[in-house]
Amino acid sequence: MKAVVLLSGGLDSSTLLHYVIQRLGAREVYALSFIYGQKHQCELTAAAWQAKAAGVKAHDVVDMGFFSALTPGSSVLTDEHLTVPRLVDLAPSELTQPPTYVPNRNMMLLSIAAAYAEARGVTSLFYGAQTQDSYGYWDCTPEFLEKINAVLSLNRRNAVTVVAPFVNMRKADEIRLGLELGVDYAHTWTCYRGGATPCGECPSCVERGDAFLEVGIADPLLAV
Amino acid sequence: MKAVVLLSGGLDSSTLLHYVIQRLGAREVYALSFIYGQKHQCELTAAAWQAKAAGVKAHDVVDMGFFSALTPGSSVLTDEHLTVPRLVDLAPSELTQPPTYVPNRNMMLLSIAAAYAEARGVTSLFYGAQTQDSYGYWDCTPEFLEKINAVLSLNRRNAVTVVAPFVNMRKADEIRLGLELGVDYAHTWTCYRGGATPCGECPSCVERGDAFLEVGIADPLLAV
Repeated sequence: MKAVVLLSGGLDSSTLLHYVIQRLGAREVYALSFIYGQKHQCELTAAAWQAKAAGVKAHDVVDMGFFSALTPGSSVLTDEHLTVPRLVDLAPSELTQPPTYVPNRNMMLLSIAAAYAEARGVTSLFYGAQTQDSYGYWDCTPEFLEKINAVLSLNRRNAVTVVAPFVNMRKADEIRLGLELGVDYAHTWTCYRGGATPCGECPSCVERGDAFLEVGIADPLLAV
Repeated sequence: MKAVVLLSGGLDSSTLLHYVIQRLGAREVYALSFIYGQKHQCELTAAAWQAKAAGVKAHDVVDMGFFSALTPGSSVLTDEHLTVPRLVDLAPSELTQPPTYVPNRNMMLLSIAAAYAEARGVTSLFYGAQTQDSYGYWDCTPEFLEKINAVLSLNRRNAVTVVAPFVNMRKADEIRLGLELGVDYAHTWTCYRGGATPCGECPSCVERGDAFLEVGIADPLLAV
């Protein structure tokens, strides 16, 4: 099986990459990462590390650096004038689509990744959505996955299918799986703020920290 | 009404732009064009001309020049080593997804345009698909439109809707409408080959030529 894996360098997609190779037996794997103006571009260093560790056929990085200027003020992840808030400072009403949401990002990245896959004759496009993000991100839900695939299924020659094995899995269970697979979580990046070390208080850091706590091990990234 | 219009500079989207302003009464209109490695980038000159003539609030151009290298060999429109064929040289079996098809292009462009619209609080995204292209391009069909909107409708805050008023209209009828609206078709570009003048024999040129023939007027572009 050939596969394209959307690889951000975060915990979810890094686990997914190793899962696709080790458990699903994919033999020709292309990892695809994106620069879309995110402050935490250091995640790409982690992506490159994981791609190499996993032994992919190719790791490509798409530079969509234009995206932050194209969508000013729309997300704290991409607008340098906006601050990534602490999770505890978000009002409950904000949580259904928090300020860390990036407009239509995942549809956009999957669309480009599907073109990349189609050009290589690859029909399986792997996507690391997991269930805990679906609280705030409509583009991480099973419904989103289903409807994206309804679009792509219209292709008359080489229809690509987006596969998200973790879409109903919690992050702690991903970590348990990743540890079985030997994933080195010291080389994954999660913090949204883009500092030299994880802030520990942005929504993404808190979610990661809670998951490691639940598993009962220390986050190796914090020991680096 | 605010609107974003996907504007290639071709006949369809140029007509659409003027239609949205004159007939639908849109008052704050953003035109969005894309460089995706197409050989016929001269269409962008036409797009800029039409945007100015229509009096848009802004005309932005997204440079996705990386796309041709990301999808090598996948389309005669974007691969410099491949030749855009004459329509008469295409086998009937090729017509359901011809070599001029660009992998997942329209889903990709609409995804980015939807993010652009969402960032501006615009909920109507206009798309110039017309019925004669649906023979060969799954991403110009009413089904595609319906399923793209099913994805976008999941957005929990500012859902964007893709609107394609011409999706069931033939090109000759678009020209008749455009002439009523005063569209200057001398400033639209259709030929896929990217030469200084239209080749007259690529699939896109033939379709345009047939439409003008049906209307019974000369294509003003050919008189320039």
